Amino acid sequence: MNISNICVVGVGLIGGSFAQALKKSGFTGTITGVVRDLDKGREAIRLGVIDEATCDIAAAAGIADVIMLAVPMLSMREQLEKIAPVVRPQAIVTDAGSVKNPFIADARECLPYLNRVVPGHPIAGKEKSGLEAVDAELYQDHRILLTPLPETDTDAVQIIRELWEKTGGIVELLTPDHHDAALAATSHLPHVLAFAMVDTLTSRQEINEIFRYAAGGFRDFSRIASGETIMWRDICLSNQESVYQAISEFEAHLTVIKTAIAEGDGPTLETVFRRAREARDQHIGHTTKL
Amino acid sequence: MNISNICVVGVGLIGGSFAQALKKSGFTGTITGVVRDLDKGREAIRLGVIDEATCDIAAAAGIADVIMLAVPMLSMREQLEKIAPVVRPQAIVTDAGSVKNPFIADARECLPYLNRVVPGHPIAGKEKSGLEAVDAELYQDHRILLTPLPETDTDAVQIIRELWEKTGGIVELLTPDHHDAALAATSHLPHVLAFAMVDTLTSRQEINEIFRYAAGGFRDFSRIASGETIMWRDICLSNQESVYQAISEFEAHLTVIKTAIAEGDGPTLETVFRRAREARDQHIGHTTKL
Repeated sequence: MNISNICVVGVGLIGGSFAQALKKSGFTGTITGVVRDLDKGREAIRLGVIDEATCDIAAAAGIADVIMLAVPMLSMREQLEKIAPVVRPQAIVTDAGSVKNPFIADARECLPYLNRVVPGHPIAGKEKSGLEAVDAELYQDHRILLTPLPETDTDAVQIIRELWEKTGGIVELLTPDHHDAALAATSHLPHVLAFAMVDTLTSRQEINEIFRYAAGGFRDFSRIASGETIMWRDICLSNQESVYQAISEFEAHLTVIKTAIAEGDGPTLETVFRRAREARDQHIGHTTKL
Repeated sequence: MNISNICVVGVGLIGGSFAQALKKSGFTGTITGVVRDLDKGREAIRLGVIDEATCDIAAAAGIADVIMLAVPMLSMREQLEKIAPVVRPQAIVTDAGSVKNPFIADARECLPYLNRVVPGHPIAGKEKSGLEAVDAELYQDHRILLTPLPETDTDAVQIIRELWEKTGGIVELLTPDHHDAALAATSHLPHVLAFAMVDTLTSRQEINEIFRYAAGGFRDFSRIASGETIMWRDICLSNQESVYQAISEFEAHLTVIKTAIAEGDGPTLETVFRRAREARDQHIGHTTKL
């Protein structure tokens, strides 16, 4: 199957970087960006992010070989409903959402050809968002997780894999359940904790001072509380069960430390801190560049 | 008062960087490092960190104009007991510990001349520790918090202030209570959360995978769980009450998020995330380089 027409819905950090990286890799087809504001679309063309821009998702999706949905989690359903009536039987529908099960549930309800659905999640991001943050190097050496359905055609997976590989990503396949549980622990939990921590500090009277005396650890940590508000709200609601479970597990581990502090129990603190440190030092070498 | 002889107890990251920065700033007196292992002491001299080295704390402290204690929190008491019989009446005793009230309590019990005690805490650090990590630039533009006692002589505070300013630090005075409460929130709490989070993940079966799919947020966050095990145990035990209090406040804020996730309450999540993000973005510009 020759891919000559890609429709990218949402030309922000994720969708724009995907498009620009493909163009820079030598992809010779046409990439059409679906935008809400045509001025933004023209700016994206000027920046070499996309080839064409439109606000008409149905028009762009109806002629596409690949449709990439790069919109916030809770907007996915709306986009799926819009493309469902026009999507061609061989067109591949993929996405870049952070949670896979809800996207799959929506796809099952909306789309006519499930054998062409390839859910995906690039593990890459930045503090900044929008067209200004687009970066053709964003995916270089980052993991791209694909979670095909049982009915997904292998050639559709292969096509999406090759597109991501052109962007520099390292593609891996796993099940949607597996993906959502793992990401709840490694990504969604730390973000929730960072938001909760900064929120804790804002409720203190001496707020200015607190940030004034903030040490390095705080800064590293609080940086991830600068994430997109809507995106993280959507992720928490989309991956409700797994995130709730991860928070509960975390609370139990925090209670161990808190109790040890209350009881002046040095050996327990030392054991927990050492176990965490060793696990971190041992495993972090296994991850790809982030 | 002319400072010609400084005794630095503990020539690791904090004490060694203090000594080396002073030497590089043009300090012409003698800096004697008190070490446990004389080979390390000779290495520190070779590296230009200190001028002389000894394992005999009493000998070095007995002739010093300034004694800087840069040892883990729970070793402070032992060092104070050793210097107490030999410290000269005009010699200034200062420290670099992360918690101030316990140091002050120990100083009150051990030392004969409280008017020469200037407790201090440089807000600077690195993941690495020991002589290898020593860095004359460590304190450049970082805040140095001094928490004098009511009976501390102002000239003693001024002398310690000037020494820190030579290292590039920005000195501020505050009360010990104030210091310990603020640092519990901005430094001790984030470290406890990072340790608890990594510990949570290590208890999962799919541990390898979890680190494999770790996203940027996790990496930023878990990096601070690489802190020195003993140092953080000591900090938690030394600042017991304030850290316990900070953890309790955090738990209440986390419960709000957890409940909102369970109830699918998007507006609450959005409110909390936005409040945290805005506070972070607004205040972080107020802090010095970290």
